Amino acid sequence: MERHFDEELTELNKQLLRMGSFVEEAIQVSIKALVERKDDLAGEVIKRDETINMLEIEIDELCLRLLALYQPKAIDLRFITSAMKINNDLERIADQAVNIAERTQEIIKQPFLKPLIDIPRMAVLAQNMVKDSIDALVNKNEALARDVCKRDDEVDNLNEQVFRELLTYMMQDPKTITRAVELILVGRHLERIADHATNIAEDVIYFLKGKTIKHHIENQ
Amino acid sequence: MERHFDEELTELNKQLLRMGSFVEEAIQVSIKALVERKDDLAGEVIKRDETINMLEIEIDELCLRLLALYQPKAIDLRFITSAMKINNDLERIADQAVNIAERTQEIIKQPFLKPLIDIPRMAVLAQNMVKDSIDALVNKNEALARDVCKRDDEVDNLNEQVFRELLTYMMQDPKTITRAVELILVGRHLERIADHATNIAEDVIYFLKGKTIKHHIENQ
Repeated sequence: MERHFDEELTELNKQLLRMGSFVEEAIQVSIKALVERKDDLAGEVIKRDETINMLEIEIDELCLRLLALYQPKAIDLRFITSAMKINNDLERIADQAVNIAERTQEIIKQPFLKPLIDIPRMAVLAQNMVKDSIDALVNKNEALARDVCKRDDEVDNLNEQVFRELLTYMMQDPKTITRAVELILVGRHLERIADHATNIAEDVIYFLKGKTIKHHIENQ
Repeated sequence: MERHFDEELTELNKQLLRMGSFVEEAIQVSIKALVERKDDLAGEVIKRDETINMLEIEIDELCLRLLALYQPKAIDLRFITSAMKINNDLERIADQAVNIAERTQEIIKQPFLKPLIDIPRMAVLAQNMVKDSIDALVNKNEALARDVCKRDDEVDNLNEQVFRELLTYMMQDPKTITRAVELILVGRHLERIADHATNIAEDVIYFLKGKTIKHHIENQ
Protein backbone atom coordinates (compact mmCIF):
# COMPACT_ATOMS: atom_id res chain seq x y z
CA MET A 1 0.00 0.00 0.00
CA GLU A 2 2.77 2.45 0.98
CA ARG A 3 4.59 2.08 -2.30
CA HIS A 4 1.44 2.54 -4.33
CA PHE A 5 0.56 5.74 -2.49
CA ASP A 6 4.01 7.18 -3.22
CA GLU A 7 3.63 6.33 -6.88
CA GLU A 8 0.27 8.09 -7.00
CA LEU A 9 1.79 11.15 -5.31
CA THR A 10 4.52 11.21 -7.97
CA GLU A 11 1.82 11.02 -10.61
CA LEU A 12 -0.01 13.93 -8.96
CA ASN A 13 3.20 16.00 -9.01
CA LYS A 14 3.68 15.20 -12.70
CA GLN A 15 0.12 16.17 -13.56
CA LEU A 16 0.44 19.48 -11.68
CA LEU A 17 3.66 20.28 -13.57
CA ARG A 18 1.91 19.46 -16.83
CA MET A 19 -1.03 21.69 -15.90
CA GLY A 20 1.41 24.44 -14.93
CA SER A 21 3.24 24.32 -18.24
CA PHE A 22 -0.01 24.41 -20.26
CA VAL A 23 -1.12 27.44 -18.27
CA GLU A 24 2.20 29.26 -18.69
CA GLU A 25 1.99 28.64 -22.41
CA ALA A 26 -1.54 30.07 -22.51
CA ILE A 27 -0.33 33.31 -20.90
CA GLN A 28 2.65 33.56 -23.24
CA VAL A 29 0.71 32.90 -26.43
CA SER A 30 -2.15 35.26 -25.49
CA ILE A 31 0.31 38.14 -25.07
CA LYS A 32 2.23 37.20 -28.22
CA ALA A 33 -1.10 37.35 -30.08
CA LEU A 34 -1.75 40.81 -28.62
CA VAL A 35 1.72 42.23 -29.35
CA GLU A 36 1.97 40.75 -32.86
CA ARG A 37 -1.74 41.37 -33.57
CA LYS A 38 -2.38 37.78 -34.66
CA ASP A 39 -5.96 36.59 -34.57
CA ASP A 40 -5.06 32.93 -35.22
CA LEU A 41 -2.74 32.82 -32.18
CA ALA A 42 -5.52 34.25 -29.99
CA GLY A 43 -7.82 31.56 -31.39
CA GLU A 44 -5.25 28.89 -30.42
CA VAL A 45 -5.35 29.99 -26.77
CA ILE A 46 -9.14 29.77 -26.72
CA LYS A 47 -9.12 26.35 -28.41
CA ARG A 48 -6.48 24.84 -26.13
CA ASP A 49 -8.36 25.89 -23.00
CA GLU A 50 -10.52 22.78 -23.39
CA THR A 51 -7.48 20.56 -22.69
CA ILE A 52 -6.69 22.57 -19.55
CA ASN A 53 -10.29 22.24 -18.35
CA MET A 54 -10.17 18.47 -18.82
CA LEU A 55 -6.84 18.22 -17.02
CA GLU A 56 -8.25 20.20 -14.08
CA ILE A 57 -11.02 17.63 -13.67
CA GLU A 58 -8.55 14.72 -13.95
CA ILE A 59 -6.29 16.18 -11.25
CA ASP A 60 -9.25 16.91 -8.99
CA GLU A 61 -10.45 13.32 -9.32
CA LEU A 62 -6.97 11.97 -8.66
CA CYS A 63 -6.85 14.01 -5.42
CA LEU A 64 -10.25 12.77 -4.28
CA ARG A 65 -9.24 9.18 -5.04
CA LEU A 66 -6.06 9.60 -2.98
CA LEU A 67 -8.03 11.03 -0.05
CA ALA A 68 -10.64 8.27 -0.19
CA LEU A 69 -8.29 5.32 -0.73
CA TYR A 70 -5.32 6.14 1.48
CA GLN A 71 -6.74 8.45 4.17
CA PRO A 72 -3.47 10.37 4.34
CA LYS A 73 -2.51 12.40 7.40
CA ALA A 74 -0.29 15.37 8.30
CA ILE A 75 1.93 16.56 5.45
CA ASP A 76 0.43 14.16 2.87
CA LEU A 77 -3.07 15.36 3.68
CA ARG A 78 -1.93 18.97 3.41
CA PHE A 79 -0.21 18.24 0.10
CA ILE A 80 -3.32 16.78 -1.48
CA THR A 81 -5.73 19.45 -0.25
CA SER A 82 -3.23 22.13 -1.35
CA ALA A 83 -2.95 20.44 -4.75
CA MET A 84 -6.73 20.68 -5.16
CA LYS A 85 -6.66 24.42 -4.49
CA ILE A 86 -3.60 25.01 -6.67
CA ASN A 87 -5.18 23.07 -9.51
CA ASN A 88 -8.23 25.33 -9.25
CA ASP A 89 -6.07 28.46 -9.34
CA LEU A 90 -4.22 27.20 -12.41
CA GLU A 91 -7.47 26.65 -14.25
CA ARG A 92 -8.57 30.19 -13.42
CA ILE A 93 -5.28 31.58 -14.65
CA ALA A 94 -5.95 29.84 -17.96
CA ASP A 95 -9.38 31.51 -18.01
CA GLN A 96 -7.69 34.88 -17.64
CA ALA A 97 -5.43 34.03 -20.59
CA VAL A 98 -8.58 33.21 -22.60
CA ASN A 99 -9.99 36.60 -21.60
CA ILE A 100 -6.81 38.26 -22.88
CA ALA A 101 -7.09 36.30 -26.13
CA GLU A 102 -10.72 37.37 -26.57
CA ARG A 103 -9.86 41.03 -25.90
CA THR A 104 -6.98 40.70 -28.36
CA GLN A 105 -9.38 39.61 -31.08
CA GLU A 106 -11.37 42.82 -30.46
CA ILE A 107 -8.32 45.08 -30.15
CA ILE A 108 -6.76 44.02 -33.45
CA LYS A 109 -9.92 44.86 -35.35
CA GLN A 110 -9.14 48.49 -34.50
CA PRO A 111 -6.19 50.65 -35.63
CA PHE A 112 -2.84 50.30 -33.85
CA LEU A 113 -2.74 52.49 -30.71
CA LYS A 114 0.82 52.33 -29.33
CA PRO A 115 3.75 49.95 -29.03
CA LEU A 116 3.16 47.76 -26.00
CA ILE A 117 6.03 47.82 -23.50
CA ASP A 118 4.68 47.49 -19.96
CA ILE A 119 1.97 44.94 -20.72
CA PRO A 120 4.44 42.34 -22.09
CA ARG A 121 6.70 43.06 -19.09
CA MET A 122 3.79 42.42 -16.72
CA ALA A 123 3.03 39.22 -18.62
CA VAL A 124 6.60 37.92 -18.22
CA LEU A 125 6.54 38.73 -14.50
CA ALA A 126 3.17 37.04 -14.03
CA GLN A 127 4.20 34.00 -16.05
CA ASN A 128 7.38 33.57 -13.99
CA MET A 129 5.35 33.85 -10.80
CA VAL A 130 3.18 30.97 -12.00
CA LYS A 131 6.21 28.89 -13.00
CA ASP A 132 8.06 29.51 -9.73
CA SER A 133 5.02 28.84 -7.55
CA ILE A 134 4.62 25.38 -9.12
CA ASP A 135 8.38 24.74 -8.92
CA ALA A 136 8.24 25.71 -5.24
CA LEU A 137 5.49 23.12 -4.71
CA VAL A 138 7.19 20.28 -6.53
CA ASN A 139 10.66 20.98 -5.08
CA LYS A 140 9.32 21.85 -1.61
CA ASN A 141 11.15 25.19 -1.84
CA GLU A 142 9.70 27.55 0.75
CA ALA A 143 12.09 30.43 -0.02
CA LEU A 144 11.01 30.41 -3.65
CA ALA A 145 7.34 30.48 -2.63
CA ARG A 146 7.98 33.47 -0.36
CA ASP A 147 9.78 35.21 -3.22
CA VAL A 148 6.73 34.76 -5.47
CA CYS A 149 4.51 36.44 -2.85
CA LYS A 150 6.82 39.45 -2.77
CA ARG A 151 6.75 39.91 -6.55
CA ASP A 152 3.00 40.55 -6.58
CA ASP A 153 3.56 44.22 -5.73
CA GLU A 154 5.76 44.68 -8.79
CA VAL A 155 2.94 43.53 -11.07
CA ASP A 156 0.43 45.75 -9.24
CA ASN A 157 2.70 48.77 -9.70
CA LEU A 158 3.20 48.10 -13.41
CA ASN A 159 -0.54 47.71 -13.81
CA GLU A 160 -1.13 51.04 -12.11
CA GLN A 161 1.40 52.59 -14.52
CA VAL A 162 -0.32 51.05 -17.57
CA PHE A 163 -3.66 52.31 -16.27
CA ARG A 164 -2.43 55.90 -15.80
CA GLU A 165 -0.73 55.99 -19.20
CA LEU A 166 -3.83 54.75 -21.01
CA LEU A 167 -6.00 57.30 -19.20
CA THR A 168 -3.75 60.00 -20.69
CA TYR A 169 -4.24 58.59 -24.21
CA MET A 170 -8.01 58.65 -23.74
CA MET A 171 -8.07 62.19 -22.44
CA GLN A 172 -5.95 63.49 -25.27
CA ASP A 173 -7.93 61.73 -27.98
CA PRO A 174 -11.39 60.30 -27.29
CA LYS A 175 -11.13 58.22 -30.48
CA THR A 176 -8.69 55.98 -28.59
CA ILE A 177 -11.12 55.26 -25.74
CA THR A 178 -12.44 51.86 -26.83
CA ARG A 179 -8.97 50.49 -27.54
CA ALA A 180 -7.46 51.99 -24.40
CA VAL A 181 -10.20 50.53 -22.17
CA GLU A 182 -9.60 47.08 -23.71
CA LEU A 183 -5.90 47.41 -22.89
CA ILE A 184 -6.70 48.50 -19.33
CA LEU A 185 -8.73 45.31 -18.98
CA VAL A 186 -5.80 43.24 -20.33
CA GLY A 187 -3.72 44.79 -17.54
CA ARG A 188 -6.37 43.76 -15.03
CA HIS A 189 -6.32 40.18 -16.33
CA LEU A 190 -2.54 40.04 -15.86
CA GLU A 191 -2.91 41.44 -12.36
CA ARG A 192 -5.43 38.69 -11.59
CA ILE A 193 -2.98 36.08 -12.89
CA ALA A 194 -0.33 37.40 -10.49
CA ASP A 195 -2.91 37.26 -7.67
CA HIS A 196 -3.65 33.60 -8.44
CA ALA A 197 0.10 32.83 -8.52
CA THR A 198 0.39 34.49 -5.11
CA ASN A 199 -2.46 32.30 -3.82
CA ILE A 200 -0.61 29.24 -5.11
CA ALA A 201 2.61 30.33 -3.39
CA GLU A 202 0.70 30.91 -0.12
CA ASP A 203 -0.77 27.42 -0.37
CA VAL A 204 2.72 26.00 -0.95
CA ILE A 205 3.98 27.70 2.23
CA TYR A 206 0.99 26.37 4.13
CA PHE A 207 1.66 22.88 2.84
CA LEU A 208 5.35 23.05 3.83
CA LYS A 209 5.00 24.78 7.19
CA GLY A 210 1.57 23.60 8.26
CA LYS A 211 0.55 27.17 8.95
CA THR A 212 -1.10 29.82 6.86
CA ILE A 213 0.53 33.06 5.75
CA LYS A 214 -2.68 34.15 4.10
CA HIS A 215 -3.92 37.56 5.13
CA HIS A 216 -0.55 38.19 6.80
CA ILE A 217 -1.52 36.71 10.16
CA GLU A 218 1.94 35.20 10.47
CA ASN A 219 4.40 37.19 12.57
CA GLN A 220 7.56 37.71 10.61
CA MET B 1 -17.31 8.66 16.90
CA GLU B 2 -20.23 8.73 14.44
CA ARG B 3 -22.23 11.20 16.51
CA HIS B 4 -19.27 13.50 16.94
CA PHE B 5 -18.60 13.58 13.20
CA ASP B 6 -22.21 14.56 12.51
CA GLU B 7 -21.96 17.35 15.07
CA GLU B 8 -18.81 18.64 13.44
CA LEU B 9 -20.51 18.56 10.03
CA THR B 10 -23.38 20.61 11.46
CA GLU B 11 -20.82 23.07 12.82
CA LEU B 12 -19.19 23.27 9.36
CA ASN B 13 -22.58 24.03 7.80
CA LYS B 14 -23.20 26.75 10.36
CA GLN B 15 -19.80 28.32 9.78
CA LEU B 16 -20.32 28.33 6.00
CA LEU B 17 -23.70 30.03 6.43
CA ARG B 18 -22.06 32.61 8.68
CA MET B 19 -19.29 33.21 6.14
CA GLY B 20 -21.93 33.50 3.40
CA SER B 21 -23.92 36.12 5.29
CA PHE B 22 -20.81 38.20 6.04
CA VAL B 23 -19.87 38.11 2.37
CA GLU B 24 -23.38 39.07 1.20
CA GLU B 25 -23.32 41.97 3.59
CA ALA B 26 -19.95 43.11 2.22
CA ILE B 27 -21.37 43.23 -1.31
CA GLN B 28 -24.49 45.07 -0.19
CA VAL B 29 -22.67 47.67 1.90
CA SER B 30 -20.00 48.33 -0.76
CA ILE B 31 -22.69 49.16 -3.33
CA LYS B 32 -24.69 51.21 -0.82
CA ALA B 33 -21.50 53.22 -0.19
CA LEU B 34 -21.11 53.76 -3.94
CA VAL B 35 -24.72 54.75 -4.61
CA GLU B 36 -25.03 57.01 -1.55
CA ARG B 37 -21.45 58.29 -1.92
CA LYS B 38 -20.54 57.49 1.69
CA ASP B 39 -16.86 57.17 2.48
CA ASP B 40 -17.44 55.80 6.00
CA LEU B 41 -19.56 52.91 4.68
CA ALA B 42 -16.81 52.02 2.21
CA GLY B 43 -14.35 52.09 5.11
CA GLU B 44 -16.59 49.68 7.05
CA VAL B 45 -16.39 47.10 4.25
CA ILE B 46 -12.60 47.32 4.22
CA LYS B 47 -12.39 47.05 8.00
CA ARG B 48 -14.74 44.09 8.29
CA ASP B 49 -12.80 42.10 5.70
CA GLU B 50 -10.38 41.08 8.46
CA THR B 51 -13.15 39.09 10.18
CA ILE B 52 -13.95 37.31 6.92
CA ASN B 53 -10.28 36.46 6.40
CA MET B 54 -10.06 34.97 9.89
CA LEU B 55 -13.24 32.98 9.38
CA GLU B 56 -11.88 31.57 6.11
CA ILE B 57 -8.85 30.20 7.98
CA GLU B 58 -11.05 28.75 10.75
CA ILE B 59 -13.28 26.94 8.25
CA ASP B 60 -10.27 25.65 6.33
CA GLU B 61 -8.76 24.25 9.51
CA LEU B 62 -12.06 22.67 10.54
CA CYS B 63 -12.20 20.89 7.16
CA LEU B 64 -8.64 19.63 7.47
CA ARG B 65 -9.34 18.38 10.99
CA LEU B 66 -12.43 16.53 9.76
CA LEU B 67 -10.45 14.91 6.94
CA ALA B 68 -7.59 13.91 9.26
CA LEU B 69 -9.68 12.66 12.20
CA TYR B 70 -12.59 10.89 10.53
CA GLN B 71 -11.25 9.87 7.12
CA PRO B 72 -14.67 10.36 5.55
CA LYS B 73 -15.66 8.64 2.31
CA ALA B 74 -18.09 9.13 -0.57
CA ILE B 75 -20.58 11.98 -0.05
CA ASP B 76 -18.99 13.15 3.24
CA LEU B 77 -15.58 13.38 1.60
CA ARG B 78 -17.08 15.30 -1.31
CA PHE B 79 -18.91 17.63 1.08
CA ILE B 80 -15.75 18.55 2.96
CA THR B 81 -13.54 19.07 -0.09
CA SER B 82 -16.35 21.11 -1.71
CA ALA B 83 -16.65 23.16 1.49
CA MET B 84 -12.94 24.00 1.27
CA LYS B 85 -13.33 25.27 -2.28
CA ILE B 86 -16.54 27.15 -1.54
CA ASN B 87 -14.94 28.78 1.50
CA ASN B 88 -12.11 29.97 -0.74
CA ASP B 89 -14.57 31.40 -3.29
CA LEU B 90 -16.46 33.24 -0.55
CA GLU B 91 -13.26 34.87 0.68
CA ARG B 92 -12.46 36.02 -2.85
CA ILE B 93 -15.94 37.45 -3.24
CA ALA B 94 -15.30 39.51 -0.12
CA ASP B 95 -12.03 40.70 -1.72
CA GLN B 96 -14.03 41.92 -4.71
CA ALA B 97 -16.35 43.82 -2.35
CA VAL B 98 -13.26 45.42 -0.81
CA ASN B 99 -12.11 46.40 -4.31
CA ILE B 100 -15.50 48.02 -4.93
CA ALA B 101 -15.23 49.88 -1.60
CA GLU B 102 -11.73 51.13 -2.51
CA ARG B 103 -12.89 52.31 -5.94
CA THR B 104 -15.88 53.98 -4.27
CA GLN B 105 -13.54 56.00 -2.08
CA GLU B 106 -11.83 57.27 -5.26
CA ILE B 107 -15.06 57.84 -7.19
CA ILE B 108 -16.70 59.99 -4.53
CA LYS B 109 -13.74 62.36 -4.46
CA GLN B 110 -14.81 63.36 -7.97
CA PRO B 111 -18.00 65.12 -9.10
CA PHE B 112 -21.20 63.09 -9.51
CA LEU B 113 -21.33 61.49 -12.99
CA LYS B 114 -24.77 59.88 -13.36
CA PRO B 115 -27.45 58.15 -11.31
CA LEU B 116 -26.50 54.49 -11.00
CA ILE B 117 -29.21 52.11 -12.15
CA ASP B 118 -27.65 49.03 -13.73
CA ILE B 119 -24.75 48.66 -11.29
CA PRO B 120 -27.04 48.30 -8.22
CA ARG B 121 -29.19 45.87 -10.27
CA MET B 122 -26.10 43.79 -11.05
CA ALA B 123 -25.15 43.89 -7.37
CA VAL B 124 -28.55 42.56 -6.27
CA LEU B 125 -28.36 39.77 -8.84
CA ALA B 126 -24.82 38.84 -7.81
CA GLN B 127 -25.67 38.95 -4.12
CA ASN B 128 -28.68 36.68 -4.61
CA MET B 129 -26.50 34.26 -6.58
CA VAL B 130 -24.13 34.06 -3.60
CA LYS B 131 -27.02 33.60 -1.14
CA ASP B 132 -28.72 30.92 -3.22
CA SER B 133 -25.51 28.99 -3.91
CA ILE B 134 -24.90 28.66 -0.16
CA ASP B 135 -28.55 27.80 0.49
CA ALA B 136 -28.30 25.14 -2.21
CA LEU B 137 -25.29 23.65 -0.40
CA VAL B 138 -26.83 23.64 3.06
CA ASN B 139 -30.26 22.42 1.92
CA LYS B 140 -28.81 19.99 -0.66
CA ASN B 141 -30.96 21.67 -3.32
CA GLU B 142 -29.59 20.76 -6.75
CA ALA B 143 -32.30 22.63 -8.69
CA LEU B 144 -31.40 25.86 -6.92
CA ALA B 145 -27.70 25.37 -7.69
CA ARG B 146 -28.50 24.85 -11.38
CA ASP B 147 -30.62 28.00 -11.35
CA VAL B 148 -27.67 30.00 -9.97
CA CYS B 149 -25.46 28.80 -12.87
CA LYS B 150 -28.05 30.00 -15.37
CA ARG B 151 -28.23 33.49 -13.87
CA ASP B 152 -24.56 34.20 -14.61
CA ASP B 153 -25.44 35.25 -18.18
CA GLU B 154 -27.83 37.90 -16.91
CA VAL B 155 -25.04 39.55 -14.91
CA ASP B 156 -22.66 39.34 -17.88
CA ASN B 157 -25.23 41.02 -20.12
CA LEU B 158 -25.87 43.83 -17.65
CA ASN B 159 -22.13 44.34 -17.31
CA GLU B 160 -21.76 44.61 -21.08
CA GLN B 161 -24.56 47.22 -21.07
CA VAL B 162 -22.88 49.22 -18.27
CA PHE B 163 -19.60 49.06 -20.19
CA ARG B 164 -21.13 50.33 -23.46
CA GLU B 165 -23.02 53.14 -21.73
CA LEU B 166 -19.93 54.37 -19.90
CA LEU B 167 -17.91 54.30 -23.14
CA THR B 168 -20.48 56.72 -24.58
CA TYR B 169 -20.05 59.08 -21.64
CA MET B 170 -16.28 59.08 -22.08
CA MET B 171 -16.48 59.73 -25.81
CA GLN B 172 -18.87 62.62 -25.38
CA ASP B 173 -16.87 64.26 -22.61
CA PRO B 174 -13.25 63.29 -21.92
CA LYS B 175 -13.50 64.95 -18.48
CA THR B 176 -15.61 61.99 -17.38
CA ILE B 177 -12.97 59.39 -18.34
CA THR B 178 -11.41 58.76 -14.93
CA ARG B 179 -14.77 58.34 -13.20
CA ALA B 180 -16.24 56.26 -16.00
CA VAL B 181 -13.26 53.87 -16.02
CA GLU B 182 -13.61 53.41 -12.25
CA LEU B 183 -17.28 52.51 -12.74
CA ILE B 184 -16.39 50.08 -15.53
CA LEU B 185 -14.06 48.37 -13.06
CA VAL B 186 -16.84 48.22 -10.44
CA GLY B 187 -18.90 46.40 -13.08
CA ARG B 188 -16.02 43.97 -13.60
CA HIS B 189 -15.81 43.29 -9.86
CA LEU B 190 -19.53 42.46 -9.77
CA GLU B 191 -19.10 40.19 -12.77
CA ARG B 192 -16.28 38.38 -10.91
CA ILE B 193 -18.56 37.96 -7.89
CA ALA B 194 -21.19 36.31 -10.10
CA ASP B 195 -18.45 34.05 -11.54
CA HIS B 196 -17.40 32.95 -8.05
CA ALA B 197 -21.05 32.28 -7.13
CA THR B 198 -21.32 30.15 -10.27
CA ASN B 199 -18.21 28.22 -9.19
CA ILE B 200 -19.83 27.62 -5.81
CA ALA B 201 -23.04 26.38 -7.44
CA GLU B 202 -21.01 24.04 -9.69
CA ASP B 203 -19.24 22.67 -6.63
CA VAL B 204 -22.60 22.11 -4.93
CA ILE B 205 -23.85 20.12 -7.92
CA TYR B 206 -20.65 18.08 -7.90
CA PHE B 207 -21.06 17.40 -4.21
CA LEU B 208 -24.69 16.28 -4.65
CA LYS B 209 -24.30 14.29 -7.85
CA GLY B 210 -20.74 13.10 -7.56
CA LYS B 211 -20.03 14.39 -11.03
CA THR B 212 -18.74 17.64 -12.36
CA ILE B 213 -20.72 20.07 -14.49
CA LYS B 214 -17.73 22.35 -14.76
CA HIS B 215 -16.79 23.31 -18.28
CA HIS B 216 -20.09 21.86 -19.53
CA ILE B 217 -18.85 18.32 -20.02
CA GLU B 218 -22.11 16.98 -18.67
CA ASN B 219 -24.67 15.99 -21.31
CA GLN B 220 -27.91 17.68 -20.55
